[in-house]
Amino acid sequence: MITSPRNKRVAAARRLRRPRVRRDTGRSLIEGPFLLEEAMSGGAEILEVFALESDMETAIRCEEAGWSLSLVTSDVMDALASSVSPRGPIAVISIPVSPSLQIRDSVVLWDIADPGNAGTIIRTAGAFGFQVIATRDTVDLWSPKVIRSAVGGHFRALPIPGIEPDPQLLLDAGLVPLAAAAGSATNVHDAMRQESPVALLIGNEARGIPNYVAENPGVTMFSVPMPGGSESLNAAVAAGIAMYLR
Amino acid sequence: MITSPRNKRVAAARRLRRPRVRRDTGRSLIEGPFLLEEAMSGGAEILEVFALESDMETAIRCEEAGWSLSLVTSDVMDALASSVSPRGPIAVISIPVSPSLQIRDSVVLWDIADPGNAGTIIRTAGAFGFQVIATRDTVDLWSPKVIRSAVGGHFRALPIPGIEPDPQLLLDAGLVPLAAAAGSATNVHDAMRQESPVALLIGNEARGIPNYVAENPGVTMFSVPMPGGSESLNAAVAAGIAMYLR
Repeated sequence: MITSPRNKRVAAARRLRRPRVRRDTGRSLIEGPFLLEEAMSGGAEILEVFALESDMETAIRCEEAGWSLSLVTSDVMDALASSVSPRGPIAVISIPVSPSLQIRDSVVLWDIADPGNAGTIIRTAGAFGFQVIATRDTVDLWSPKVIRSAVGGHFRALPIPGIEPDPQLLLDAGLVPLAAAAGSATNVHDAMRQESPVALLIGNEARGIPNYVAENPGVTMFSVPMPGGSESLNAAVAAGIAMYLR
Repeated sequence: MITSPRNKRVAAARRLRRPRVRRDTGRSLIEGPFLLEEAMSGGAEILEVFALESDMETAIRCEEAGWSLSLVTSDVMDALASSVSPRGPIAVISIPVSPSLQIRDSVVLWDIADPGNAGTIIRTAGAFGFQVIATRDTVDLWSPKVIRSAVGGHFRALPIPGIEPDPQLLLDAGLVPLAAAAGSATNVHDAMRQESPVALLIGNEARGIPNYVAENPGVTMFSVPMPGGSESLNAAVAAGIAMYLR
């Protein structure tokens, strides 16, 4: 039973909240029984599980699956978790190796900054069968917050992070780049009627799609008509509407 | 110049982070120049503005608009704001009185718990011209987090909070209740082809729509087809797709 948040293994797990530590170790943290099962069925390695002493279900599951289990006090669980009054379990996983780019419908997180938006787009991509790609300046896709918002989406279709922010790469790969625009552009419904696989570019929450991308003749800009007139949709909602229409 | 986070007016503003204090005072907090303009044009009263000494734009705007301005140090701004390295301004507003229910297309937050989801749905409703209604167990619509996620949506169409969680109320008002379901139900595209004004019920993130609502013969359950097979969409994304299709 681990009783101190300063325990070495707990401290090592907590350091995985930092992007650099995740990158250096190739590990991240997941929270809750649902994500543990999703991670396992998605082929992620479960390196260590921290659970409350009262959490018999997790104890039984770890025994069955052969996962290394450490029982912890609720103080230690509070220190490990990001949520308030966490029930755990918390697991250290090894981040799966990204697959190579496939020529199929994709959503591209173009410098998305908010972990909740990134996770929600990954979740939606899982629901609609889209491949997920992210530019290198997008928030770390394997942060615990992004994983939580995606509710298992990472493990159903491994995302491809860290691409150069160059639409030519997508064109060369045989994808048709379509980018969400704030103003007037091709209606989203018409833009999605493409025969070839598309790459749906979702821009940064504050800055949108950069000019050099919008001005690339190979990129089609589209917009969602908004009869309410506010001209403003959340990035993950705009992405969801576009993926639904494909 | 206010230099201490313990200053009385700063402390009073900070207390507005608590739902009970907002309810008792009828006030809330907004952050950033954009929301200040939206609040004003939406008819909310701006009671007090806190800005950094270096923020000349806000000083000029307060002078023009006749708003009470207090200059604060960056320590005080950090204490007032919810974001990291906030630039302000932060304003205390009086929460506008809710309008009465109109017979037009509406989205009903049915015990929505996450402030980001609530705010995003309010934002989307603004874009698509939907009235926003919330059950009394939904997260407080006037929390600073919800206001921030809605990016001004509150002020473009005042939401109606605190209704009884009874679908009969909506039916009696002449709205057709349509509720998002997790499993198989009427296709969302077909469900939205209603002649009468609809009330789009979006259920709690974990529990969904309660059984007594789903079993009410006046309520039509709908679902979004998900070819990816994960059967899981974020509440705000599901709401966005349904509102788009209307």
